[in-house]
Amino acid sequence: MNMTKPTHAGYFFAQSVTDLAQRLRAGSLTSVELTQAALDSIKRLNPILNAFVCVDASVALAQARKADELFEQGLDLGPLQGIPVAVKDNIDTFDYVTTYGSAHFAGFKPEHDAVCVKRLREAGAVIVGKTLTHEFAYGPTGDRSLQGAARNPWNADCITGGSSAGSAAAVASGMVPLALGTDTGGSIRIPAALCGVVGFKPSFASVPLDGVFPLASSLDHVGPIANHVEDARLLFEVIAGRTCAPLANPRPLRIGWIRSGSFGPVDAELDSQVYQAAQQLFGEGLQEVDELAQLSADMKATLQVLQRAEAFNVHAERMQSAPHMFEAEVRERLELSCEVRGWQYIRAQSSQARLKAAMAQVFKRYDLLVSPSVPITATVVDAREVQVGAQDIDVRAALLSHTSAWNLTGLPAISLPVGLVRGMPVGLQVIGAAGEDDQLLRVMAQRFAGHAVASEPTER
Amino acid sequence: MNMTKPTHAGYFFAQSVTDLAQRLRAGSLTSVELTQAALDSIKRLNPILNAFVCVDASVALAQARKADELFEQGLDLGPLQGIPVAVKDNIDTFDYVTTYGSAHFAGFKPEHDAVCVKRLREAGAVIVGKTLTHEFAYGPTGDRSLQGAARNPWNADCITGGSSAGSAAAVASGMVPLALGTDTGGSIRIPAALCGVVGFKPSFASVPLDGVFPLASSLDHVGPIANHVEDARLLFEVIAGRTCAPLANPRPLRIGWIRSGSFGPVDAELDSQVYQAAQQLFGEGLQEVDELAQLSADMKATLQVLQRAEAFNVHAERMQSAPHMFEAEVRERLELSCEVRGWQYIRAQSSQARLKAAMAQVFKRYDLLVSPSVPITATVVDAREVQVGAQDIDVRAALLSHTSAWNLTGLPAISLPVGLVRGMPVGLQVIGAAGEDDQLLRVMAQRFAGHAVASEPTER
Repeated sequence: MNMTKPTHAGYFFAQSVTDLAQRLRAGSLTSVELTQAALDSIKRLNPILNAFVCVDASVALAQARKADELFEQGLDLGPLQGIPVAVKDNIDTFDYVTTYGSAHFAGFKPEHDAVCVKRLREAGAVIVGKTLTHEFAYGPTGDRSLQGAARNPWNADCITGGSSAGSAAAVASGMVPLALGTDTGGSIRIPAALCGVVGFKPSFASVPLDGVFPLASSLDHVGPIANHVEDARLLFEVIAGRTCAPLANPRPLRIGWIRSGSFGPVDAELDSQVYQAAQQLFGEGLQEVDELAQLSADMKATLQVLQRAEAFNVHAERMQSAPHMFEAEVRERLELSCEVRGWQYIRAQSSQARLKAAMAQVFKRYDLLVSPSVPITATVVDAREVQVGAQDIDVRAALLSHTSAWNLTGLPAISLPVGLVRGMPVGLQVIGAAGEDDQLLRVMAQRFAGHAVASEPTER
Repeated sequence: MNMTKPTHAGYFFAQSVTDLAQRLRAGSLTSVELTQAALDSIKRLNPILNAFVCVDASVALAQARKADELFEQGLDLGPLQGIPVAVKDNIDTFDYVTTYGSAHFAGFKPEHDAVCVKRLREAGAVIVGKTLTHEFAYGPTGDRSLQGAARNPWNADCITGGSSAGSAAAVASGMVPLALGTDTGGSIRIPAALCGVVGFKPSFASVPLDGVFPLASSLDHVGPIANHVEDARLLFEVIAGRTCAPLANPRPLRIGWIRSGSFGPVDAELDSQVYQAAQQLFGEGLQEVDELAQLSADMKATLQVLQRAEAFNVHAERMQSAPHMFEAEVRERLELSCEVRGWQYIRAQSSQARLKAAMAQVFKRYDLLVSPSVPITATVVDAREVQVGAQDIDVRAALLSHTSAWNLTGLPAISLPVGLVRGMPVGLQVIGAAGEDDQLLRVMAQRFAGHAVASEPTER
């Protein structure tokens, strides 16, 4: 394993939560020290990366002191006690302003915590602040929001990917060791891949969405961004409100490599690096899966109809009363979204059910499916076209191309950092069968021990 | 009880299926005799009423002979064995042409029976033919279909109501003692009321809809039209595939009279006659229910959005390829239906759930709710405006006004014939709590013994 540091790296870069948790319990560290380290890293790096949109040192340190008091009293709420965590700004927190990335909610303070935040607090975590979201989470680039663009820790000229832009940048740069994101078409996995960290989208409905601002209710998920799979699991367990089942008896896993191109064009160098990483992780047992190419067009069309209709439903009144308050690109998407007809939505609902059933058939033959998380590396902020091979393709379509199918079908999917291509991180996506979150996390924690598998990192 | 005969009345007028079943078993009647009586009545009356759109004497008599053979062999499939039954032409039958009332399906012969028809056959019933449906069941008047208008047995210048137009006319005129209808906004109860027979819309999803041509999948129901509540129950038991629970221990029932006007204007004479009938049936215990007036506008708007989007979903390809083959008025409704937006459909789905919950609250205070089934008597064929009091109102809106709320909320509702107003039948609607089909049928069978409660029938 060979790991390069990003250009902008803070205290928590590559650190393990398990490790920090042990040190807190051994008394060699306090939560106040960790939280202060987070605040210091944020102070130093955030002016460059724009990952956090709201931080309040006194609120954070008060939580840290409480965690330390519990340790002193011998009370232990679990492995996240005293650990600094960042929360995406489309998730309600009663003590931090929550803008959903939009001028419509500038300065808004929710009355209540989202359920996932409440569970974080009950686990003793220290919420250090809110991270930048693409406006209303409606965009995979992370460069359009009330607070502008988040910047990639590996190259601040580039996007983080989105919409959980700030959460990925915050973890990748080591400002915090853990963050919450949301994922409707890839919004956890895309920035995780582009920033070189772990991002996990659980099974649909495995984590309650109460208090998470909706984008598209049949596709929305909340999940962890972390340095390590084990850390992602710890955060997932807290927000899901349950402990993951242990690793099942080891047996040879049937791993399917989704034939390259099934979900659209892929950068050749990236494809080959991700494939090599998959071979390292799963050995030679990798079988090529052909049949997804036939489903992918239907999957994309179906997701688009569901997402558009559901997103417009959320914003119909705002589009009526104050359309100018939306960022222009988001407004344009919403204008298109209004056009979806009721009968088309009904068909998309049927189609979603059919495609879930089709994936259940595929997962009779495979335990896990593997592909690149994103077919390109991070592009320059505001760029909307990118060359892949000889083709000019739309950046946003490319970013979403390999992730959104698993929102539509509700399957658990994780993005793992597998090194750099031309100096920028790339992600390997591993997809599990319906409801098999626990095995996916356990298997990947076992196989993907390190922070990153970088075969040939290119120094920048 | 004082009963007037309709102008056009055949063998089965006012007859009881229970009675006929006893006579079949006593050997004083055969199914072939009954079926021949049905065929003779159809031959005589159908040229006037246009209730049946497909009859095949040899097919019907073959079924009757089979039923008689079973009797001879001492085999008894239940009370419908050997009884002639009519089936609405939007329900698939493998042995009769099934047009769904549309030129799009002229001469169409389905491969399979609908599940409800299959159950009818397994119960030994004799299917004598198919009855006229408003084109694709998309209209409450019953005067627009491939086969033209059905005619009211009490006055052949008038509509039957629809969309189960032929089924109601066939039973009301005594061509058959039982018929199957379907009901998406009132399509069983409206023609039952306008023709002076019993029509029952069961709870949503209590009878399988496989093989019934869809109109709007979240609102569609299939159910019986009959002379007597007991007969409706017998047919319901067969198509629901289960026996109704016996009458619960008698206790005073809490009956709510839905305040007149809650669902729109009502003919004053009709209103007073239906109210009197309700008092006769339920005594002085009738309490006025106020709160539905507040829900009714929301109920109508919600139903309209669901129905339009779902109906267009069924017909999108036909509207694209051959719009001219729709009857003009139905095509116009479908053109409007295309306009419903996806986000509006999503809101209507939420609203439907909310309104079901609101009705569950109302039914904590009442066992049954009562209202007129239809606020007007049958209008002249093709008329689209009618005067109610001083107001000119749309006939179709008036017909649907008191029934459609119970499709939206999926509650069981029955229309009972309660005499004549100005020579034309009127119906009393009794609505039960969610899933309380059995008690509704048992209570009404006990209280509503006769064929009709006609307080002051006016001879025509």
